[in-house]
Amino acid sequence: MTGLADRAPTLKARRLRLHTQHEPVVIMRSDCHVCRSEGLAARSQVLLAAGDRAVQATLFQVDGDALLAPDEAALSEAAWTLLGVQEGDPIHVSHPPTLESLSSVRRRIHGHRLDAEAMAGIVRDVVAGRYSEIHLSAFLTATAAWPLDGDETSHLTQAMIEAGDRLSWNAPIVVDKHSIGGLPGNRTTPIVVAIVAALGLTMPKTSSRAITSPAGTADTMETLTKVDLDIPAMRRVVEAEGGCLAWGGAVRLSPADDIFIRVERVLDIDTEGQLIASVLSKKIAAGSTHVVLDIPVGPTAKVRSEEAGRALGERLVETASRFGLTAVCLQSDGSQPVGRGVGPALEALDVLAVLQNDPDAPDDLRRRACTLAGAVLELAGAAAEGDGFGAAAQALADGRAWSKFQRICEAQGGLRVPPAAALRRPLAATRSGRVVHINNRKVARLAKLAGAPDAKAAGLAVEVRLGQEIAAGDPLLTVHAQTPRELAYALDYAAANLDLVEIEA
Amino acid sequence: MTGLADRAPTLKARRLRLHTQHEPVVIMRSDCHVCRSEGLAARSQVLLAAGDRAVQATLFQVDGDALLAPDEAALSEAAWTLLGVQEGDPIHVSHPPTLESLSSVRRRIHGHRLDAEAMAGIVRDVVAGRYSEIHLSAFLTATAAWPLDGDETSHLTQAMIEAGDRLSWNAPIVVDKHSIGGLPGNRTTPIVVAIVAALGLTMPKTSSRAITSPAGTADTMETLTKVDLDIPAMRRVVEAEGGCLAWGGAVRLSPADDIFIRVERVLDIDTEGQLIASVLSKKIAAGSTHVVLDIPVGPTAKVRSEEAGRALGERLVETASRFGLTAVCLQSDGSQPVGRGVGPALEALDVLAVLQNDPDAPDDLRRRACTLAGAVLELAGAAAEGDGFGAAAQALADGRAWSKFQRICEAQGGLRVPPAAALRRPLAATRSGRVVHINNRKVARLAKLAGAPDAKAAGLAVEVRLGQEIAAGDPLLTVHAQTPRELAYALDYAAANLDLVEIEA
Repeated sequence: MTGLADRAPTLKARRLRLHTQHEPVVIMRSDCHVCRSEGLAARSQVLLAAGDRAVQATLFQVDGDALLAPDEAALSEAAWTLLGVQEGDPIHVSHPPTLESLSSVRRRIHGHRLDAEAMAGIVRDVVAGRYSEIHLSAFLTATAAWPLDGDETSHLTQAMIEAGDRLSWNAPIVVDKHSIGGLPGNRTTPIVVAIVAALGLTMPKTSSRAITSPAGTADTMETLTKVDLDIPAMRRVVEAEGGCLAWGGAVRLSPADDIFIRVERVLDIDTEGQLIASVLSKKIAAGSTHVVLDIPVGPTAKVRSEEAGRALGERLVETASRFGLTAVCLQSDGSQPVGRGVGPALEALDVLAVLQNDPDAPDDLRRRACTLAGAVLELAGAAAEGDGFGAAAQALADGRAWSKFQRICEAQGGLRVPPAAALRRPLAATRSGRVVHINNRKVARLAKLAGAPDAKAAGLAVEVRLGQEIAAGDPLLTVHAQTPRELAYALDYAAANLDLVEIEA
Repeated sequence: MTGLADRAPTLKARRLRLHTQHEPVVIMRSDCHVCRSEGLAARSQVLLAAGDRAVQATLFQVDGDALLAPDEAALSEAAWTLLGVQEGDPIHVSHPPTLESLSSVRRRIHGHRLDAEAMAGIVRDVVAGRYSEIHLSAFLTATAAWPLDGDETSHLTQAMIEAGDRLSWNAPIVVDKHSIGGLPGNRTTPIVVAIVAALGLTMPKTSSRAITSPAGTADTMETLTKVDLDIPAMRRVVEAEGGCLAWGGAVRLSPADDIFIRVERVLDIDTEGQLIASVLSKKIAAGSTHVVLDIPVGPTAKVRSEEAGRALGERLVETASRFGLTAVCLQSDGSQPVGRGVGPALEALDVLAVLQNDPDAPDDLRRRACTLAGAVLELAGAAAEGDGFGAAAQALADGRAWSKFQRICEAQGGLRVPPAAALRRPLAATRSGRVVHINNRKVARLAKLAGAPDAKAAGLAVEVRLGQEIAAGDPLLTVHAQTPRELAYALDYAAANLDLVEIEA
């Protein structure tokens, strides 16, 4: 095939500043010599090469002169970055090579189990951007129709670790925590890091930004300090303070995970095997040795029953042990949002209130953080069994955690004050009674409509707790927004979804 | 939700003449008020509305002024056509409604069977363009992982029929034929239509253009006459001549089929249930009452063993009977290409040679056409059992079929001479011996590289048959191309794929 590549025809690179998410896209003239000679049609997969880099892209075609000259190829940002080209650079276009790993996907669709090598082949091609959305969806659907068994889950975890960077730390014990999503306001991580680092453990925490939630830990921390640290900067902070609170974007830990998660969200399927590989591959790649996993259980949380939570926990711990990672799973109450704020800055205020021992600090957030920090301390041998919670609470109460948090933020670039929203509007109860249900999913949706996480100050404050007696006219939630339009949009949604907070007479 | 729709913000429509295949795409400025206020990100699904039409589209975002003004939304051709807008028309943008049918897809992924209503809901949403590639792939993968059972296959067939147009004809018996793909040059349809219409049957044939093959029947017929007939024109031709050879694009027969097939080709999966629903939904929607199905069997054909062909045939006939359609399946030799030409015009020349009783006409094509036409005649009661082949051969031999073919073409707009390619290059055998294998898939690929089906005259002529003794230097294939570049590309491929035609000493 060398002969073909040598003769691959050339177009001039044109940057379109087009965002297509992870998928590389190239736009060519339908009448250009490349499309004609290669027999390319819209949505063909093509191989783009420039210098020593190559990327597989989806082709769209355009008619006429308005957008492109006949010898130009316009690239989406994903394609532009992966190719590393400059405006006008020559790009060679050819048919992509056959994806050998797709035969593994097809076998898997028909129920054959995949070995380590087959799984590694799939994940390598996924990370290299060679899988279209159709291929990604087929792989994930196949592993939902015929769930991943224990060996396959390990193979997938291993493959996901190997397809990215791996960190290592100068400490025998490196701790971490992870919450199995689904609960608005559950922002325990900054508090846990502050407590366990104050008590001498090493916790180099990397977090993600929100994908579909109103805030990720990285979004919240960004309202307080700089989070986009590169690896040398992370190392400096961790060596000085024992912990950091960085955005994971600067390091490529398990990059397949982000791609899989995006497709799973579109499908709204979330299989146990994929979830386990997702969580563990990130932790292992980050160099953790001991990890505490929080599984919130509730009717509108990701895990809906204690039994399902227990089964998931057992599989997580068992798979972790295959990689020498010591894990423990805790179930927690997932029946309502945690703390008061939902949205980056509003959650940061809750975190600060807990760390500063503010008498109005949300007690549920404080207790959850102490439970998780206590479990970390016990797992790492820094507290005796049963003493973890007390040790954590003590470090909070006497200011050591707050002091450590300030020092970590200083080391990352300085502690700052979270922004406040321009517009606030309370939503009042339409009747008196007892709060019997708060819908986590709708609370998250409302906060996003109000502008979170892009508008850092936007979101909402939950003003009531389950079981609370309220009077008609009392505020249930307060919407925080930066623009009148976003406020209106959130209020419309709230008016159409009276089951956001249910009240029983 | 009315409140939301009323307030849906507006952008000005801009036609980009962008081809993205079936998926509607809209491009907006990432900083436009709609993206900001709706919290839209790249690859969000959005609902576009203009006048009384609406379409769901995939959003891409663009930075800066180069492509779009902040108040513009650029539409792909699919979105433009479905919305029916003019340049500058206002477009309302909002979040799409929840797709209820996706819960059926999720249940199907986990192995639950779908009833008629669930299947109809899925197919309706697919045809309305509400399924992204991810959703389409998940549905098709699920029905491959847990194959469609008999009832589901019927439900899917029914749903696919109902989601499109249905034709009806003024005749008690309406015949059709269909070949289960995979064999280059197998262009029997024009000959079969000419024979059975000459013998008094009604055969209103609609055919597709090539999707991934070097020629579809519509591509071949287009080199001989006009094929884009609307329904009144088809009716006129059929009433006058008993048959037509039209492109199916002007009628929406089972439009879901084209969408499913596109995704199946990307995945390279082809399940029996989907294939049955695909074939039968088109035939039933076209108003057929009696259909003959040709199943070529061979090592590089779609069906690879007689047993698999028999099982598929039984399911096809059984499912057809549920819809009152009388079907019969014939297996045929799928071990090598049919006739000489591969490509639109080259196949048309073979068809003409058979119809005109040219002594050099490919005998395999003639025999296949007579076999199929004979089976149609017997199935429709126009020939006694065992007499069909003879009756068909007689209609060919005495010129009635050729005369009917000419009249059909005249009625469709006039018979024309197929174009001839500017460049021809024979590929010579590198050794002497016997031809033991011809790779159908590689022959098809070579013809496409030479420019077929877009370049109508391009493709190749197969110069040898299986079992033939040849000498080194004898031509195996002749490549036909319109441009030197396409010729070079095809020759490169042939040089790299010596197993196109295998010769044993």
